[in-house]
Amino acid sequence: MSMDRLIENIVKTQNPSVVGLDPKLEYVPEFIKEKKFKKYDRTLKAAAKAILEFNKCIIDEIHDICPAIKPQAAYYEMYGYEGVKTLYKTIQYAKEKGMFVMTDGKRNDIGATMEAYAAAHLGLTDVGGEKIEAFGADALTVNGYLGSDGINPLLEQCKLYDKGIFVLVKTSNKSSGELQDLKIGDKTVYATMGDMCEKWGSEVMGKYGYSGVGAVVGATYPEQLAEMRAALPHTFFLVPGYGAQGGGA
Amino acid sequence: MSMDRLIENIVKTQNPSVVGLDPKLEYVPEFIKEKKFKKYDRTLKAAAKAILEFNKCIIDEIHDICPAIKPQAAYYEMYGYEGVKTLYKTIQYAKEKGMFVMTDGKRNDIGATMEAYAAAHLGLTDVGGEKIEAFGADALTVNGYLGSDGINPLLEQCKLYDKGIFVLVKTSNKSSGELQDLKIGDKTVYATMGDMCEKWGSEVMGKYGYSGVGAVVGATYPEQLAEMRAALPHTFFLVPGYGAQGGGA
Repeated sequence: MSMDRLIENIVKTQNPSVVGLDPKLEYVPEFIKEKKFKKYDRTLKAAAKAILEFNKCIIDEIHDICPAIKPQAAYYEMYGYEGVKTLYKTIQYAKEKGMFVMTDGKRNDIGATMEAYAAAHLGLTDVGGEKIEAFGADALTVNGYLGSDGINPLLEQCKLYDKGIFVLVKTSNKSSGELQDLKIGDKTVYATMGDMCEKWGSEVMGKYGYSGVGAVVGATYPEQLAEMRAALPHTFFLVPGYGAQGGGA
Repeated sequence: MSMDRLIENIVKTQNPSVVGLDPKLEYVPEFIKEKKFKKYDRTLKAAAKAILEFNKCIIDEIHDICPAIKPQAAYYEMYGYEGVKTLYKTIQYAKEKGMFVMTDGKRNDIGATMEAYAAAHLGLTDVGGEKIEAFGADALTVNGYLGSDGINPLLEQCKLYDKGIFVLVKTSNKSSGELQDLKIGDKTVYATMGDMCEKWGSEVMGKYGYSGVGAVVGATYPEQLAEMRAALPHTFFLVPGYGAQGGGA
Protein backbone atom coordinates (compact mmCIF):
# COMPACT_ATOMS: atom_id res chain seq x y z
CA MET A 1 0.00 0.00 0.00
CA SER A 2 0.99 3.54 -0.81
CA MET A 3 0.72 4.66 2.84
CA ASP A 4 3.10 1.83 3.80
CA ARG A 5 5.71 3.34 1.50
CA LEU A 6 5.20 6.74 3.11
CA ILE A 7 5.57 5.23 6.59
CA GLU A 8 8.74 3.42 5.52
CA ASN A 9 10.17 6.69 4.19
CA ILE A 10 9.33 8.38 7.48
CA VAL A 11 11.08 5.64 9.46
CA LYS A 12 14.11 5.76 7.16
CA THR A 13 14.53 9.54 7.44
CA GLN A 14 13.32 9.69 11.06
CA ASN A 15 11.29 12.69 9.99
CA PRO A 16 7.49 12.94 9.87
CA SER A 17 7.36 16.24 7.96
CA VAL A 18 6.43 16.75 4.34
CA VAL A 19 7.97 19.57 2.33
CA GLY A 20 5.35 21.67 0.55
CA LEU A 21 6.42 22.88 -2.87
CA ASP A 22 4.13 25.87 -3.43
CA PRO A 23 6.44 27.79 -5.71
CA LYS A 24 5.33 31.32 -6.39
CA LEU A 25 7.82 32.89 -8.75
CA GLU A 26 8.68 35.51 -6.13
CA TYR A 27 10.19 32.77 -3.94
CA VAL A 28 12.66 31.76 -6.66
CA PRO A 29 16.18 33.25 -6.30
CA GLU A 30 16.92 36.18 -8.61
CA PHE A 31 19.83 34.51 -10.41
CA ILE A 32 17.60 31.64 -11.54
CA LYS A 33 14.81 33.96 -12.63
CA GLU A 34 17.12 36.32 -14.54
CA LYS A 35 18.68 33.41 -16.42
CA LYS A 36 15.28 32.16 -17.56
CA PHE A 37 13.95 35.64 -18.37
CA LYS A 38 17.00 36.18 -20.56
CA LYS A 39 16.37 32.96 -22.44
CA TYR A 40 12.54 32.96 -22.63
CA ASP A 41 11.57 36.58 -21.92
CA ARG A 42 8.99 37.31 -19.19
CA THR A 43 6.67 34.47 -20.13
CA LEU A 44 4.85 31.65 -18.40
CA LYS A 45 7.46 29.33 -19.88
CA ALA A 46 10.28 31.30 -18.23
CA ALA A 47 8.45 31.22 -14.90
CA ALA A 48 7.79 27.49 -15.19
CA LYS A 49 11.42 26.72 -16.08
CA ALA A 50 12.68 28.86 -13.18
CA ILE A 51 10.38 27.09 -10.74
CA LEU A 52 11.48 23.67 -11.99
CA GLU A 53 15.14 24.52 -11.50
CA PHE A 54 14.42 25.83 -8.00
CA ASN A 55 12.36 22.74 -7.11
CA LYS A 56 15.16 20.46 -8.27
CA CYS A 57 17.64 22.35 -6.05
CA ILE A 58 15.31 21.89 -3.08
CA ILE A 59 14.77 18.20 -3.79
CA ASP A 60 18.54 17.66 -4.16
CA GLU A 61 19.03 19.12 -0.68
CA ILE A 62 16.18 17.38 1.14
CA HIS A 63 15.65 13.99 -0.48
CA ASP A 64 17.67 12.06 2.11
CA ILE A 65 16.37 13.90 5.17
CA CYS A 66 12.66 14.29 4.29
CA PRO A 67 10.28 11.49 3.37
CA ALA A 68 7.92 13.32 1.06
CA ILE A 69 7.04 16.40 -0.94
CA LYS A 70 3.61 17.94 -1.42
CA PRO A 71 3.42 20.10 -4.54
CA GLN A 72 0.34 22.35 -4.48
CA ALA A 73 -1.32 22.14 -7.91
CA ALA A 74 -2.65 25.71 -7.80
CA TYR A 75 0.84 27.24 -7.92
CA TYR A 76 1.66 25.28 -11.06
CA GLU A 77 -1.68 25.94 -12.77
CA MET A 78 -1.22 29.67 -12.29
CA TYR A 79 1.68 29.43 -14.76
CA GLY A 80 -0.57 27.76 -17.33
CA TYR A 81 0.23 24.53 -19.12
CA GLU A 82 3.93 25.34 -18.88
CA GLY A 83 3.50 25.41 -15.10
CA VAL A 84 1.66 22.10 -15.20
CA LYS A 85 4.59 20.62 -17.15
CA THR A 86 6.81 21.75 -14.26
CA LEU A 87 4.46 19.96 -11.85
CA TYR A 88 4.93 16.75 -13.85
CA LYS A 89 8.69 17.11 -13.98
CA THR A 90 8.89 17.94 -10.27
CA ILE A 91 6.91 14.81 -9.39
CA GLN A 92 9.09 12.62 -11.58
CA TYR A 93 12.32 14.11 -10.22
CA ALA A 94 11.29 13.63 -6.59
CA LYS A 95 10.26 10.03 -7.26
CA GLU A 96 13.60 9.29 -8.94
CA LYS A 97 15.21 10.51 -5.72
CA GLY A 98 13.11 8.09 -3.68
CA MET A 99 10.68 10.61 -2.23
CA PHE A 100 6.96 10.00 -1.71
CA VAL A 101 4.91 12.55 -3.67
CA MET A 102 1.47 13.75 -2.65
CA THR A 103 -0.12 16.16 -5.10
CA ASP A 104 -2.21 18.69 -3.22
CA GLY A 105 -5.03 19.17 -5.70
CA LYS A 106 -8.13 18.77 -3.50
CA ARG A 107 -9.79 17.22 -6.55
CA ASN A 108 -13.43 16.23 -6.41
CA ASP A 109 -16.04 15.07 -8.88
CA ILE A 110 -18.16 11.99 -9.55
CA GLY A 111 -18.11 8.73 -11.47
CA ALA A 112 -16.31 8.80 -14.81
CA THR A 113 -14.96 12.29 -14.16
CA MET A 114 -13.41 11.26 -10.87
CA GLU A 115 -11.95 8.25 -12.69
CA ALA A 116 -10.33 10.72 -15.07
CA TYR A 117 -8.78 12.63 -12.13
CA ALA A 118 -7.63 9.33 -10.65
CA ALA A 119 -6.02 8.31 -13.94
CA ALA A 120 -4.49 11.78 -14.29
CA HIS A 121 -2.86 12.09 -10.90
CA LEU A 122 -2.41 8.54 -9.63
CA GLY A 123 -2.98 5.97 -12.36
CA LEU A 124 -2.38 5.48 -16.06
CA THR A 125 -4.11 6.92 -19.11
CA ASP A 126 -4.98 4.75 -22.10
CA VAL A 127 -3.96 6.17 -25.47
CA GLY A 128 -4.94 3.74 -28.20
CA GLY A 129 -3.84 0.77 -26.11
CA GLU A 130 -0.70 2.37 -24.65
CA LYS A 131 -0.89 2.94 -20.89
CA ILE A 132 0.88 6.19 -20.00
CA GLU A 133 1.53 7.93 -16.69
CA ALA A 134 0.14 11.48 -16.92
CA PHE A 135 1.42 12.83 -13.58
CA GLY A 136 2.20 9.81 -11.43
CA ALA A 137 1.97 11.04 -7.84
CA ASP A 138 1.84 8.53 -4.96
CA ALA A 139 -1.13 10.23 -3.33
CA LEU A 140 -3.65 12.99 -4.02
CA THR A 141 -5.61 15.25 -1.68
CA VAL A 142 -9.35 15.16 -2.37
CA ASN A 143 -12.56 16.81 -1.19
CA GLY A 144 -15.35 14.45 -0.15
CA TYR A 145 -18.29 16.89 -0.33
CA LEU A 146 -19.86 14.85 -3.15
CA GLY A 147 -19.91 11.61 -1.13
CA SER A 148 -18.90 8.05 -2.07
CA ASP A 149 -19.46 8.61 -5.81
CA GLY A 150 -16.45 10.89 -5.67
CA ILE A 151 -14.24 8.56 -3.64
CA ASN A 152 -14.96 5.06 -4.98
CA PRO A 153 -13.33 5.65 -8.39
CA LEU A 154 -10.17 6.68 -6.54
CA LEU A 155 -10.17 3.55 -4.40
CA GLU A 156 -10.09 1.43 -7.55
CA GLN A 157 -6.96 3.22 -8.76
CA CYS A 158 -5.42 3.06 -5.28
CA LYS A 159 -5.79 -0.72 -5.29
CA LEU A 160 -4.64 -1.13 -8.87
CA TYR A 161 -1.58 1.10 -8.77
CA ASP A 162 -0.70 1.12 -5.06
CA LYS A 163 -1.64 4.75 -4.45
CA GLY A 164 -3.29 6.76 -1.66
CA ILE A 165 -5.62 9.69 -1.06
CA PHE A 166 -6.00 12.28 1.70
CA VAL A 167 -9.56 13.49 2.26
CA LEU A 168 -10.22 16.97 3.69
CA VAL A 169 -11.75 16.48 7.13
CA LYS A 170 -11.03 19.50 9.32
CA THR A 171 -9.05 22.10 7.40
CA SER A 172 -6.58 24.48 9.04
CA ASN A 173 -8.10 27.79 7.91
CA LYS A 174 -9.98 30.28 10.09
CA SER A 175 -13.38 29.87 8.41
CA SER A 176 -13.20 26.07 8.21
CA GLY A 177 -15.86 25.92 10.92
CA GLU A 178 -18.51 27.68 8.83
CA LEU A 179 -19.54 24.33 7.43
CA GLN A 180 -17.23 21.74 8.99
CA ASP A 181 -18.07 22.50 12.65
CA LEU A 182 -21.84 22.52 12.18
CA LYS A 183 -23.65 19.69 13.89
CA ILE A 184 -25.55 16.95 12.17
CA GLY A 185 -27.44 15.54 15.16
CA ASP A 186 -24.70 14.97 17.74
CA LYS A 187 -21.89 14.88 15.22
CA THR A 188 -20.02 17.65 13.44
CA VAL A 189 -19.69 17.71 9.66
CA TYR A 190 -15.93 17.09 9.99
CA ALA A 191 -16.43 14.07 12.27
CA THR A 192 -18.97 12.71 9.78
CA MET A 193 -16.38 13.10 7.03
CA GLY A 194 -13.82 11.41 9.29
CA ASP A 195 -16.12 8.41 9.74
CA MET A 196 -16.44 8.17 5.96
CA CYS A 197 -12.63 8.03 5.71
CA GLU A 198 -12.51 5.02 8.04
CA LYS A 199 -15.26 3.36 6.00
CA TRP A 200 -13.65 4.08 2.63
CA GLY A 201 -10.26 3.07 4.01
CA SER A 202 -11.42 -0.37 5.13
CA GLU A 203 -11.21 -1.43 1.47
CA VAL A 204 -7.54 -0.54 1.14
CA MET A 205 -5.77 -1.50 4.38
CA GLY A 206 -1.99 -1.45 4.55
CA LYS A 207 0.35 -3.68 6.52
CA TYR A 208 1.09 -1.15 9.30
CA GLY A 209 -2.54 -0.68 10.30
CA TYR A 210 -3.20 2.42 8.23
CA SER A 211 -5.39 2.44 5.15
CA GLY A 212 -4.80 4.08 1.78
CA VAL A 213 -7.35 6.74 2.73
CA GLY A 214 -5.74 9.45 4.84
CA ALA A 215 -7.32 12.58 6.30
CA VAL A 216 -6.34 16.25 6.28
CA VAL A 217 -6.75 17.62 9.81
CA GLY A 218 -5.31 21.06 10.60
CA ALA A 219 -2.80 21.64 13.42
CA THR A 220 -4.55 24.94 14.07
CA TYR A 221 -7.38 23.10 15.84
CA PRO A 222 -5.54 20.89 18.37
CA GLU A 223 -8.70 19.77 20.20
CA GLN A 224 -10.38 18.59 17.03
CA LEU A 225 -7.11 17.02 15.94
CA ALA A 226 -6.93 15.01 19.18
CA GLU A 227 -10.61 14.07 18.83
CA MET A 228 -10.11 12.85 15.26
CA ARG A 229 -6.85 11.04 16.12
CA ALA A 230 -8.75 9.01 18.73
CA ALA A 231 -11.77 8.43 16.48
CA LEU A 232 -9.95 7.35 13.31
CA PRO A 233 -7.40 4.70 14.28
CA HIS A 234 -6.72 3.43 10.74
CA THR A 235 -6.49 6.80 9.05
CA PHE A 236 -3.10 8.41 8.41
CA PHE A 237 -3.16 12.17 9.01
CA LEU A 238 -1.74 14.96 6.89
CA VAL A 239 -1.53 17.91 9.27
CA PRO A 240 -1.21 21.37 7.69
CA GLY A 241 -1.10 24.63 9.60
CA TYR A 242 1.96 23.86 11.72
CA GLY A 243 4.18 26.94 11.99
CA ALA A 244 3.22 30.00 9.95
CA GLN A 245 -0.52 29.37 10.29
CA GLY A 246 -0.19 29.15 14.07
CA GLY A 247 -0.40 25.43 14.90
CA GLY A 248 2.14 23.77 17.26
CA ALA A 249 3.09 20.28 18.37
CA MET B 1 -20.52 41.18 -14.55
CA SER B 2 -19.55 37.82 -15.96
CA MET B 3 -23.03 36.34 -15.35
CA ASP B 4 -24.52 39.25 -17.31
CA ARG B 5 -22.46 38.20 -20.32
CA LEU B 6 -23.69 34.63 -19.93
CA ILE B 7 -27.30 35.81 -19.73
CA GLU B 8 -26.82 37.98 -22.84
CA ASN B 9 -25.41 34.99 -24.72
CA ILE B 10 -28.41 32.92 -23.63
CA VAL B 11 -30.82 35.60 -24.87
CA LYS B 12 -28.94 35.96 -28.15
CA THR B 13 -28.95 32.22 -28.89
CA GLN B 14 -32.36 31.62 -27.27
CA ASN B 15 -30.78 28.58 -25.68
CA PRO B 16 -30.14 28.02 -21.97
CA SER B 17 -27.95 24.93 -22.38
CA VAL B 18 -24.21 24.68 -21.96
CA VAL B 19 -22.20 22.20 -24.00
CA GLY B 20 -19.92 20.08 -21.83
CA LEU B 21 -16.57 19.29 -23.42
CA ASP B 22 -15.47 16.18 -21.51
CA PRO B 23 -13.35 14.69 -24.25
CA LYS B 24 -12.23 11.17 -23.58
CA LEU B 25 -10.10 10.04 -26.48
CA GLU B 26 -12.58 7.26 -27.26
CA TYR B 27 -15.17 9.91 -28.22
CA VAL B 28 -12.88 11.38 -30.89
CA PRO B 29 -13.59 10.16 -34.46
CA GLU B 30 -11.15 7.53 -35.78
CA PHE B 31 -9.88 9.61 -38.71
CA ILE B 32 -8.72 12.38 -36.37
CA LYS B 33 -7.09 9.94 -33.97
CA GLU B 34 -5.31 7.98 -36.71
CA LYS B 35 -3.90 11.18 -38.21
CA LYS B 36 -2.44 12.24 -34.86
CA PHE B 37 -1.17 8.74 -33.98
CA LYS B 38 0.64 8.68 -37.32
CA LYS B 39 2.31 12.00 -36.61
CA TYR B 40 3.00 11.69 -32.85
CA ASP B 41 2.73 7.95 -32.16
CA ARG B 42 0.43 6.75 -29.34
CA THR B 43 1.43 9.47 -26.88
CA LEU B 44 -0.29 11.94 -24.60
CA LYS B 45 0.64 14.60 -27.15
CA ALA B 46 -1.19 12.73 -29.93
CA ALA B 47 -4.24 12.34 -27.69
CA ALA B 48 -4.19 16.02 -26.72
CA LYS B 49 -3.85 17.16 -30.34
CA ALA B 50 -6.69 14.88 -31.44
CA ILE B 51 -8.96 16.21 -28.70
CA LEU B 52 -8.16 19.80 -29.60
CA GLU B 53 -9.04 19.22 -33.25
CA PHE B 54 -12.30 17.53 -32.23
CA ASN B 55 -13.17 20.33 -29.79
CA LYS B 56 -12.59 22.95 -32.49
CA CYS B 57 -14.93 21.07 -34.85
CA ILE B 58 -17.62 21.04 -32.14
CA ILE B 59 -17.15 24.73 -31.33
CA ASP B 60 -17.32 25.62 -35.05
CA GLU B 61 -20.70 23.88 -35.25
CA ILE B 62 -22.28 25.19 -32.05
CA HIS B 63 -20.89 28.66 -31.39
CA ASP B 64 -23.88 30.50 -32.89
CA ILE B 65 -26.57 28.27 -31.40
CA CYS B 66 -25.19 27.65 -27.90
CA PRO B 67 -24.20 30.31 -25.39
CA ALA B 68 -21.46 28.53 -23.51
CA ILE B 69 -19.10 25.58 -23.18
CA LYS B 70 -18.06 23.81 -20.01
CA PRO B 71 -14.76 21.96 -20.39
CA GLN B 72 -14.23 19.46 -17.57
CA ALA B 73 -10.64 19.86 -16.32
CA ALA B 74 -10.28 16.19 -15.34
CA TYR B 75 -10.48 14.99 -18.95
CA TYR B 76 -7.66 17.29 -19.94
CA GLU B 77 -5.48 16.52 -16.92
CA MET B 78 -5.70 12.82 -17.68
CA TYR B 79 -3.66 13.53 -20.81
CA GLY B 80 -0.97 15.24 -18.74
CA TYR B 81 0.42 18.69 -19.45
CA GLU B 82 -0.23 18.18 -23.15
CA GLY B 83 -3.89 17.72 -22.27
CA VAL B 84 -3.83 20.85 -20.14
CA LYS B 85 -2.42 22.74 -23.14
CA THR B 86 -5.46 21.54 -25.08
CA LEU B 87 -7.69 22.88 -22.30
CA TYR B 88 -6.05 26.30 -22.70
CA LYS B 89 -6.38 26.27 -26.47
CA THR B 90 -10.00 25.11 -26.30
CA ILE B 91 -10.88 27.96 -23.92
CA GLN B 92 -9.19 30.53 -26.14
CA TYR B 93 -10.83 29.19 -29.31
CA ALA B 94 -14.32 29.23 -27.81
CA LYS B 95 -13.83 32.77 -26.52
CA GLU B 96 -12.66 33.96 -29.95
CA LYS B 97 -15.95 32.57 -31.27
CA GLY B 98 -17.90 34.60 -28.72
CA MET B 99 -18.80 31.76 -26.37
CA PHE B 100 -18.88 32.00 -22.58
CA VAL B 101 -16.46 29.49 -21.04
CA MET B 102 -16.91 27.90 -17.64
CA THR B 103 -14.09 25.62 -16.59
CA ASP B 104 -15.45 22.74 -14.55
CA GLY B 105 -12.60 22.28 -12.09
CA LYS B 106 -14.40 22.21 -8.72
CA ARG B 107 -11.30 23.88 -7.31
CA ASN B 108 -11.03 24.56 -3.59
CA ASP B 109 -8.36 25.73 -1.22
CA ILE B 110 -7.69 28.67 1.10
CA GLY B 111 -6.07 32.08 1.13
CA ALA B 112 -3.01 32.50 -1.06
CA THR B 113 -3.53 29.08 -2.64
CA MET B 114 -7.07 29.92 -3.69
CA GLU B 115 -5.71 33.19 -5.07
CA ALA B 116 -3.36 31.10 -7.19
CA TYR B 117 -6.30 29.07 -8.54
CA ALA B 118 -8.21 32.29 -9.19
CA ALA B 119 -5.24 33.75 -11.08
CA ALA B 120 -4.80 30.48 -12.97
CA HIS B 121 -8.34 29.98 -14.20
CA LEU B 122 -9.96 33.43 -14.15
CA GLY B 123 -7.40 36.18 -13.68
CA LEU B 124 -3.86 37.07 -14.67
CA THR B 125 -0.50 35.80 -13.47
CA ASP B 126 2.38 38.16 -12.77
CA VAL B 127 5.70 37.16 -14.33
CA GLY B 128 8.32 39.74 -13.46
CA GLY B 129 5.85 42.58 -14.00
CA GLU B 130 4.14 41.12 -17.08
CA LYS B 131 0.50 40.17 -16.49
CA ILE B 132 -0.33 37.02 -18.44
CA GLU B 133 -3.55 35.03 -18.84
CA ALA B 134 -2.84 31.42 -17.84
CA PHE B 135 -6.19 29.86 -18.83
CA GLY B 136 -8.67 32.72 -19.04
CA ALA B 137 -12.08 31.14 -18.50
CA ASP B 138 -15.12 33.33 -17.78
CA ALA B 139 -16.20 31.24 -14.80
CA LEU B 140 -14.96 28.36 -12.66
CA THR B 141 -16.82 25.73 -10.66
CA VAL B 142 -15.66 25.58 -7.04
CA ASN B 143 -16.26 23.55 -3.89
CA GLY B 144 -17.13 25.56 -0.77
CA TYR B 145 -16.37 22.91 1.87
CA LEU B 146 -13.55 25.07 3.28
CA GLY B 147 -15.81 28.10 3.89
CA SER B 148 -15.31 31.80 3.12
CA ASP B 149 -11.49 31.55 3.17
CA GLY B 150 -11.83 29.53 -0.01
CA ILE B 151 -14.32 31.82 -1.72
CA ASN B 152 -13.20 35.37 -0.85
CA PRO B 153 -9.99 35.24 -2.94
CA LEU B 154 -12.15 34.32 -5.93
CA LEU B 155 -14.53 37.22 -5.36
CA GLU B 156 -11.61 39.63 -5.63
CA GLN B 157 -10.67 38.24 -9.03
CA CYS B 158 -14.32 38.19 -10.12
CA LYS B 159 -14.60 41.90 -9.40
CA LEU B 160 -11.23 42.76 -10.93
CA TYR B 161 -11.54 40.78 -14.16
CA ASP B 162 -15.32 40.49 -14.57
CA LYS B 163 -15.50 36.74 -13.91
CA GLY B 164 -17.87 34.35 -12.14
CA ILE B 165 -17.91 31.18 -10.04
CA PHE B 166 -20.36 28.32 -9.58
CA VAL B 167 -20.35 26.76 -6.11
CA LEU B 168 -21.38 23.12 -5.61
CA VAL B 169 -24.62 23.15 -3.62
CA LYS B 170 -26.63 19.99 -4.35
CA THR B 171 -24.79 17.77 -6.79
CA SER B 172 -26.52 15.47 -9.27
CA ASN B 173 -24.92 12.17 -8.21
CA LYS B 174 -26.61 9.33 -6.33
CA SER B 175 -24.54 9.61 -3.15
CA SER B 176 -24.69 13.41 -2.97
CA GLY B 177 -27.04 13.08 -0.01
CA GLU B 178 -24.48 11.30 2.18
CA LEU B 179 -23.24 14.67 3.36
CA GLN B 180 -25.30 17.28 1.52
CA ASP B 181 -28.74 16.12 2.72
CA LEU B 182 -27.78 15.83 6.39
CA LYS B 183 -29.48 18.31 8.67
CA ILE B 184 -27.74 21.04 10.60
CA GLY B 185 -30.56 22.01 12.97
CA ASP B 186 -33.53 22.54 10.63
CA LYS B 187 -31.43 23.10 7.55
CA THR B 188 -29.68 20.69 5.22
CA VAL B 189 -25.98 21.02 4.41
CA TYR B 190 -26.85 21.92 0.80
CA ALA B 191 -29.29 24.66 1.87
CA THR B 192 -26.61 26.03 4.20
CA MET B 193 -24.20 26.13 1.26
CA GLY B 194 -26.92 27.80 -0.82
CA ASP B 195 -27.31 30.54 1.79
CA MET B 196 -23.56 31.12 1.66
CA CYS B 197 -23.83 31.59 -2.13
CA GLU B 198 -26.39 34.36 -1.67
CA LYS B 199 -24.16 35.98 0.95
CA TRP B 200 -20.97 35.73 -1.11
CA GLY B 201 -22.87 36.88 -4.20
CA SER B 202 -24.11 40.08 -2.59
CA GLU B 203 -20.61 41.51 -3.15
CA VAL B 204 -20.69 40.95 -6.90
CA MET B 205 -24.20 41.75 -8.15
CA GLY B 206 -24.87 42.00 -11.88
CA LYS B 207 -27.31 44.22 -13.73
CA TYR B 208 -29.93 41.51 -14.37
CA GLY B 209 -30.41 40.65 -10.70
CA TYR B 210 -28.01 37.71 -10.60
CA SER B 211 -24.68 37.80 -8.81
CA GLY B 212 -21.29 36.56 -9.96
CA VAL B 213 -21.67 33.59 -7.59
CA GLY B 214 -23.75 30.84 -9.18
CA ALA B 215 -24.71 27.47 -7.74
CA VAL B 216 -24.52 23.91 -9.05
CA VAL B 217 -27.84 22.18 -8.35
CA GLY B 218 -28.51 18.82 -10.01
CA ALA B 219 -31.58 18.19 -12.19
CA THR B 220 -31.70 14.70 -10.70
CA TYR B 221 -33.24 16.12 -7.50
CA PRO B 222 -36.18 18.21 -8.80
CA GLU B 223 -37.66 18.88 -5.34
CA GLN B 224 -34.41 20.23 -3.95
CA LEU B 225 -33.89 22.16 -7.17
CA ALA B 226 -37.28 23.86 -6.76
CA GLU B 227 -36.54 24.51 -3.08
CA MET B 228 -33.18 26.10 -3.90
CA ARG B 229 -34.61 28.09 -6.83
CA ALA B 230 -37.11 29.69 -4.44
CA ALA B 231 -34.54 30.23 -1.68
CA LEU B 232 -31.74 31.76 -3.76
CA PRO B 233 -33.25 34.52 -5.92
CA HIS B 234 -29.95 36.18 -6.91
CA THR B 235 -28.03 33.00 -7.66
CA PHE B 236 -27.70 31.76 -11.24
CA PHE B 237 -27.97 27.96 -11.47
CA LEU B 238 -25.82 25.52 -13.39
CA VAL B 239 -27.96 22.38 -13.60
CA PRO B 240 -26.15 19.14 -14.43
CA GLY B 241 -27.77 15.73 -14.62
CA TYR B 242 -30.33 16.55 -17.31
CA GLY B 243 -30.65 13.65 -19.77
CA ALA B 244 -28.24 10.73 -19.37
CA GLN B 245 -28.15 11.01 -15.57
CA GLY B 246 -31.95 10.90 -15.41
CA GLY B 247 -33.05 14.49 -14.76
CA GLY B 248 -35.84 16.12 -16.82
CA ALA B 249 -37.38 19.56 -17.29
